Amino acid sequence: MAAHRISDAVIRRLPGYYRYLRELEKVGITRISSQELGARMGLTASQIRQDINCFGTLGQQGYGYNVAELRAHIGGILGLGRKYEMVIAGAGNIGQAVAWYPGFSQRGFSPAAMFDVKPDLIGRVIRGVPVYNVTELRAFLEEHPADIGVIATPARVAQQVAQQMIEGGVRALWNFAPIDLKVPEGVVANNVHLTDSLLVLTYRLHQMEAREEAAPQNNLDA
Amino acid sequence: MAAHRISDAVIRRLPGYYRYLRELEKVGITRISSQELGARMGLTASQIRQDINCFGTLGQQGYGYNVAELRAHIGGILGLGRKYEMVIAGAGNIGQAVAWYPGFSQRGFSPAAMFDVKPDLIGRVIRGVPVYNVTELRAFLEEHPADIGVIATPARVAQQVAQQMIEGGVRALWNFAPIDLKVPEGVVANNVHLTDSLLVLTYRLHQMEAREEAAPQNNLDA
Repeated sequence: MAAHRISDAVIRRLPGYYRYLRELEKVGITRISSQELGARMGLTASQIRQDINCFGTLGQQGYGYNVAELRAHIGGILGLGRKYEMVIAGAGNIGQAVAWYPGFSQRGFSPAAMFDVKPDLIGRVIRGVPVYNVTELRAFLEEHPADIGVIATPARVAQQVAQQMIEGGVRALWNFAPIDLKVPEGVVANNVHLTDSLLVLTYRLHQMEAREEAAPQNNLDA
Repeated sequence: MAAHRISDAVIRRLPGYYRYLRELEKVGITRISSQELGARMGLTASQIRQDINCFGTLGQQGYGYNVAELRAHIGGILGLGRKYEMVIAGAGNIGQAVAWYPGFSQRGFSPAAMFDVKPDLIGRVIRGVPVYNVTELRAFLEEHPADIGVIATPARVAQQVAQQMIEGGVRALWNFAPIDLKVPEGVVANNVHLTDSLLVLTYRLHQMEAREEAAPQNNLDA
């Protein structure tokens, strides 16, 4: 059952639903109303109902949602429930963080190898993941097909490394280099721009400060 | 000139505008049409015009936008053009990646210190940033007020560390721990869930594969 016509905004919220439903399952909650789920997620009950209606008819009026069922359903839409082999280009901080991110393995993500150009990294095994020379990436992919390629290299080589991964049969790229990767038809990419999320934070801080200046409250005198 | 009533979707796109406009400036482009900017950013010209109308009247019909002016204007909305002192809790891979992220310093972000619990990290200076015991966080903030607190700790201590930062006067939290931080009025937080962006990628891969199964193309025979 493919989920057609789900808007980008809902897609962005899907992983959050999955995360919250997992938490509920962990603490033994089996059923939840749209009100309760909304309160936890910072959304309105009507938003929750609208979103969930987008991806099927689950839950009955007045009975709330079956947590395990909804989590499994959303997991299915997200493509979970199978194993994803990963290769990671760039064995620096970001590459290493991805290689052993807590909870990845239990969701089916399996980092097979990291690739780098630095002699002091090549040949090491970092938290169970071997680091090879990036010149071996193509040959490695011939032997070990991978589903997901992680790009954690400097920006100037990111597109080139992506190209090698694509030629090696990788069809999904998770990119941390500060550029927007160009990918051909038949390949998907998600660009994570860490600076972008920092700038959303400074935006909010700046707006909050502007509001405070416009309507000063003498907190110090309270 | 505060930017009121900008929708969340536009706010999320603002850092992207800033990034693309910086790139244009770097390569010496001084003026750009909504068509050209849209083509680069993967947005329609009308989307670009709508977005830019949200935050002021810049550019004239037929003349395009002045790149430097628009970049400066968006930078102002994002709260750039000042210095932000940062403290980083958690000196692991994510904390270290943030501490020396390329381009941070030129945008005004200055990591003052990292804090950790691991004896082998405490006392070290990693790429110019000292690592202190997390027990010293509050005292450090008394002496060195910080604008932004980065949470790169395990999930189980993230809320507690956030609390200490808030008590120490930090008003903006950039959180990488896989929980949604709760913050009081007068504090802003942005939660970066790396797994969420990976699941958006598996969603797209899964949808692409489902479409291919529904309408197979014999690429191999081509």
